[in-house]
Amino acid sequence: MKAFMDRDFILQTDTAKHLFHDHAESLPIIDYHCHLSPQEIYEDRRFNNIAEVWFGGKEDDGHYFGDHYKWRLMRSNGLNERMVTEHGDELARFKAFAATLEMAIGNPMYHWCNLELRKYFGITEPLNTGNAEEIYNKCNEMLKNDPKLSVRGLIEQSNVAYVGTTDDPIDSLEWHKKIAADKSVKFMVRPSFRPDKAINIQKDGFKEYIGKLAMAAGKDSLESAADVIEALKDRIRFFAAHGCVASDHGLDYIPFREGDMAAADSAFNKVMNGETISLEEAEIYQTKVLCEIAKEYHKQGIAMELHYSCLRNMNERMFKLEGPDTGFDMISQNTCGGHIAELLSYLDKTGELPKTIIFSLNPADNEQIGTILGCFQSDEMPGKIQHGPAWWFNDSKSGMEEQMKSLANLGLLGNFIGMLTDSRSFLSYTRHDYFRRIMCNLIGNWVENGEYPNDEKALKKIVEGISFYNAKRYFNLDI
Amino acid sequence: MKAFMDRDFILQTDTAKHLFHDHAESLPIIDYHCHLSPQEIYEDRRFNNIAEVWFGGKEDDGHYFGDHYKWRLMRSNGLNERMVTEHGDELARFKAFAATLEMAIGNPMYHWCNLELRKYFGITEPLNTGNAEEIYNKCNEMLKNDPKLSVRGLIEQSNVAYVGTTDDPIDSLEWHKKIAADKSVKFMVRPSFRPDKAINIQKDGFKEYIGKLAMAAGKDSLESAADVIEALKDRIRFFAAHGCVASDHGLDYIPFREGDMAAADSAFNKVMNGETISLEEAEIYQTKVLCEIAKEYHKQGIAMELHYSCLRNMNERMFKLEGPDTGFDMISQNTCGGHIAELLSYLDKTGELPKTIIFSLNPADNEQIGTILGCFQSDEMPGKIQHGPAWWFNDSKSGMEEQMKSLANLGLLGNFIGMLTDSRSFLSYTRHDYFRRIMCNLIGNWVENGEYPNDEKALKKIVEGISFYNAKRYFNLDI
Amino acid sequence: MKAFMDRDFILQTDTAKHLFHDHAESLPIIDYHCHLSPQEIYEDRRFNNIAEVWFGGKEDDGHYFGDHYKWRLMRSNGLNERMVTEHGDELARFKAFAATLEMAIGNPMYHWCNLELRKYFGITEPLNTGNAEEIYNKCNEMLKNDPKLSVRGLIEQSNVAYVGTTDDPIDSLEWHKKIAADKSVKFMVRPSFRPDKAINIQKDGFKEYIGKLAMAAGKDSLESAADVIEALKDRIRFFAAHGCVASDHGLDYIPFREGDMAAADSAFNKVMNGETISLEEAEIYQTKVLCEIAKEYHKQGIAMELHYSCLRNMNERMFKLEGPDTGFDMISQNTCGGHIAELLSYLDKTGELPKTIIFSLNPADNEQIGTILGCFQSDEMPGKIQHGPAWWFNDSKSGMEEQMKSLANLGLLGNFIGMLTDSRSFLSYTRHDYFRRIMCNLIGNWVENGEYPNDEKALKKIVEGISFYNAKRYFNLDI
Repeated sequence: MKAFMDRDFILQTDTAKHLFHDHAESLPIIDYHCHLSPQEIYEDRRFNNIAEVWFGGKEDDGHYFGDHYKWRLMRSNGLNERMVTEHGDELARFKAFAATLEMAIGNPMYHWCNLELRKYFGITEPLNTGNAEEIYNKCNEMLKNDPKLSVRGLIEQSNVAYVGTTDDPIDSLEWHKKIAADKSVKFMVRPSFRPDKAINIQKDGFKEYIGKLAMAAGKDSLESAADVIEALKDRIRFFAAHGCVASDHGLDYIPFREGDMAAADSAFNKVMNGETISLEEAEIYQTKVLCEIAKEYHKQGIAMELHYSCLRNMNERMFKLEGPDTGFDMISQNTCGGHIAELLSYLDKTGELPKTIIFSLNPADNEQIGTILGCFQSDEMPGKIQHGPAWWFNDSKSGMEEQMKSLANLGLLGNFIGMLTDSRSFLSYTRHDYFRRIMCNLIGNWVENGEYPNDEKALKKIVEGISFYNAKRYFNLDI
Repeated sequence: MKAFMDRDFILQTDTAKHLFHDHAESLPIIDYHCHLSPQEIYEDRRFNNIAEVWFGGKEDDGHYFGDHYKWRLMRSNGLNERMVTEHGDELARFKAFAATLEMAIGNPMYHWCNLELRKYFGITEPLNTGNAEEIYNKCNEMLKNDPKLSVRGLIEQSNVAYVGTTDDPIDSLEWHKKIAADKSVKFMVRPSFRPDKAINIQKDGFKEYIGKLAMAAGKDSLESAADVIEALKDRIRFFAAHGCVASDHGLDYIPFREGDMAAADSAFNKVMNGETISLEEAEIYQTKVLCEIAKEYHKQGIAMELHYSCLRNMNERMFKLEGPDTGFDMISQNTCGGHIAELLSYLDKTGELPKTIIFSLNPADNEQIGTILGCFQSDEMPGKIQHGPAWWFNDSKSGMEEQMKSLANLGLLGNFIGMLTDSRSFLSYTRHDYFRRIMCNLIGNWVENGEYPNDEKALKKIVEGISFYNAKRYFNLDI
Repeated sequence: MKAFMDRDFILQTDTAKHLFHDHAESLPIIDYHCHLSPQEIYEDRRFNNIAEVWFGGKEDDGHYFGDHYKWRLMRSNGLNERMVTEHGDELARFKAFAATLEMAIGNPMYHWCNLELRKYFGITEPLNTGNAEEIYNKCNEMLKNDPKLSVRGLIEQSNVAYVGTTDDPIDSLEWHKKIAADKSVKFMVRPSFRPDKAINIQKDGFKEYIGKLAMAAGKDSLESAADVIEALKDRIRFFAAHGCVASDHGLDYIPFREGDMAAADSAFNKVMNGETISLEEAEIYQTKVLCEIAKEYHKQGIAMELHYSCLRNMNERMFKLEGPDTGFDMISQNTCGGHIAELLSYLDKTGELPKTIIFSLNPADNEQIGTILGCFQSDEMPGKIQHGPAWWFNDSKSGMEEQMKSLANLGLLGNFIGMLTDSRSFLSYTRHDYFRRIMCNLIGNWVENGEYPNDEKALKKIVEGISFYNAKRYFNLDI
């Protein structure tokens, strides 16, 4: 029996151990997509206790902040919502979570939590109901006193070279500017451009948002779809000037419905006048905006991330109570794969297709995505079109294995840009460690099974590439 | 090489063997969903020969009764329909099935049949063309004489604590009453409420069925959707009074189309008047009935099982010849996942969401279902919303592994209520043994691979929970 | 560590090695579906160099010919299109491909290429950037001089018994006739009937094609859908007279929309008159033609292959440049499974359902297909309805394993007719070797794990059946 989560965690073969320890383990982390707060990085926030770090909870302003992955697990164990999302008896919450975790056999959360305890707190015993209080106290002690457990300390000790945050086009990027000006920050922090609110014309709050976008772009108002596009392009250039290398789109599905600018303007004007529009009208507007800003991404060398197949806020009662991103989202089923290809084809036709990374929340889409990539690769760079790493609900051992096997079957795994955390937590960098172990184990198994030669030079290139160098090249990072 | 189907069948590691033999094997069976006949249980039916038990066939009244899983296999081997579904030369049928089974490598039927021969007849040699006649004779001898091979004997020697049959709302439950009154029945037998015929407004026979439902509810007639709902609620209370703890819905897909009661009434009246209705009208009626009876389930503590994504009776010629449930059904593809969530959200909004168990016949839906669960869990009980065990065509070793891995990745496997047979055969209890082996093997592999600690207390709780205690708690059974 | 690609490549257990080496390896190949040129077979073409064989490229007439699998990989590695698809510095192309292949860990192409080098050129060292030039020169030397490396030599040394080409109904079959008349051809070459152009009424070129079809059928013109059907039936009989045993349909999805002949005629006439038709009209025509020719297949004992769920030519820019079949196709998502069943049911109703082989490009459809089979089997022959082997993008180790596991779970793997190359290359026969290894390994694992008895007689029958005898029986081949 392999020991639980020892030095060779996940690594089943000698080749896997060699690849991980000698090639992957010590490379810096490029976390090209996450939801960390640049303000907290700049201010080098500290945490009061491990419950605050792990669960968060209802803030004084009524807003809920924390890790909805953990909240879902706790609810699945029959915990009362107060224990799940409200600050209170923090030790009791921690104990309740420890009891939950015991039932989470086979869940990535089991590994993530114990990897975090090991890496940042030196705790090698798995968390359980028996040792929860002791671990709680030890973590809190360290959180208060250990200089390596401030936000910057955590990032530094995790060997992070690059942090790509997620930012609204209307953001002033003030915290990014401050970080850039602060020589004591030893890693790169860059904004990513996420213009969902300007694209989701059919969702609440669109009109108000357009007003803010106008202001951010230095305009009195935006009077047409064309104006919105110009304002977004203006903001893309502003982001690019502050080092942005990636954009991020979170869409229910990827639309592609061609129309002329007049039709897009008409949809825009109707919504701004408070009228409702049809699905077709909305899609014409969305397609137009998406296509035009994608061309600007291409011009600026910014990669376009497309995330789709998520249904959000499906529990109406809880949404009213707690708002978005509190753990009530699900995998959707779409048949928009053909539209993704049409979108990429439209942009490729004029040589304006940006680097693109495709993520579906539905793992049944893996193979389709793998075949889309192959239709749009080019000599701009190896692996210009990427299948994003296993996203969100799929970010498990088997989910990552499936994504990599699919990618390997259908394209070049050797050019994969690898992992990101997509996380709101400063402790999540162990997920890169987890990913690299899984990747090295997969590759190690192929080699040990005689399915790829034991060619040290080629294996080193592949493993180091997926761990670090491919993302460095892809995002053209000076690190 | 592991011996075929020995004591450690399926169990690849020492941990798996320990978990199975020391924790799972000897626990009683809660078979919370099957299609056994309460009359046959009460009357303690005996069987004439193994062909009758395994294949059944055309009955004197022209009705076909038997195991459509086996029929499909036999047809796949090119057997004439007479050999497949008609009583006749029973030995010849048995031999033809043995020849079929040899080709069924990798099919769960191979394991089920040999497990049944081993468990109930003490036959340790795998069935094949060479020994078919000998085995046939031995089984028949025992079926005639062995007191343990009557219906009750089979259930008792299988260590079954609970049998949940499938019953129509109009059923008088007379056999259930007789069983309940008979002290010599050593296991619990309870009805489950399956109101498909009252919901399938667009299917043949609806009008006639409504007449019968009225009678069962003590009414002269049902004049509206609201009347149907009241009658069904009345029957739910009647079932609950006789110990019903589960309902069961077999739907092509899960509809959710909100409408007012007037719209549901209108659809109902049109159909009762012989008019055709649109899909939209049918869905409004179905949604209304489903929602209202679900509230009654919640009130009575009855779990709601939702089975979907099946297309039935797809071979028109054979359907005319043999009727439903004769082996001509297939997996469907639906995109109704969002509607399932809307249905649950609608019920949850008013605190009336019953315990719910979701089953899709399409294994590509596993991950979506796993994410629906997490949106609707609550502190009513751990694992209130369940992903049902691998159903029907998925009820294979790999199908069960996939369902459990998906569930583990996305929620708490430790709270899973585990296996059911969904069977029409009294020999099928070995499928619980099969399931427990597969479950222990999966968990054993995780432990042996260092992915979960070798924590005896936690593992015992998980394995015993999935085998028995979770279902006991879930259905609140006094056993 | 297993050595790379040695004698026991893929074979992990002693049972697997035994099954492969003693039962599978030496059986002849029935390649019942490929895209080889009968002319090149008749003329016994030779090749100038390995780049020509592996990549092909732009021909003098502007047409692109070659292996789009390899082209896609090369594009994924950032190669310029000239290197990918244009003849030029062939050594440079070969070297660029060798560099690409190093990144293709986990991709079937890695195995295919190295298997081909080993089998046909005796090269046991895996191709890489270091040895590319040496290998290039060695291959070219052999291609020029070795009599075993002509087209016929390759087919013969591959132990191929049967080659089923893909042919247009209007084809005169002149090369097939010449081959049949040439006693020196030591293997069977037969046409397959692929009438896509007569069915794709909504695609460009339909009208022109109908003119050619009329001519081929000896008519002045075809004036109705009924005429088209008669012409196709005439051609089917002509093909059958020249030994055709299979037809092949490549459809975006399988339509089934019943209509009378007048409606089909109307759709036909509109298109012939240059009018556009609705999707519904097109589907009525397609369904009618498909059904009627399927009946003729049944009469002639010809198997019907249905290939679906492919979206073709998705990169508009490259399609304009290079035309179809140049590597810009993708997996589609369809929900037409029910229509497939309706089509088969329609034909089965009158006893006119031909042998049918179903292939979806989307692996998420595997299980649905497995359940369709079971609805339409019959005593015409074991396994009359087949799940085709893992197709195109799925033709990988894991893709084949998934297809076989799905088939085994849902039907009789023992009746599977096994592998085909679907290839345009004369070196692709090693894929049968690859398939047989994967199949023997899968079966070997089951036996070694105690999931199927170590019954030599039964295993021999299964393995030899899947390798050779099942296809021989299915296509009624006199070999």
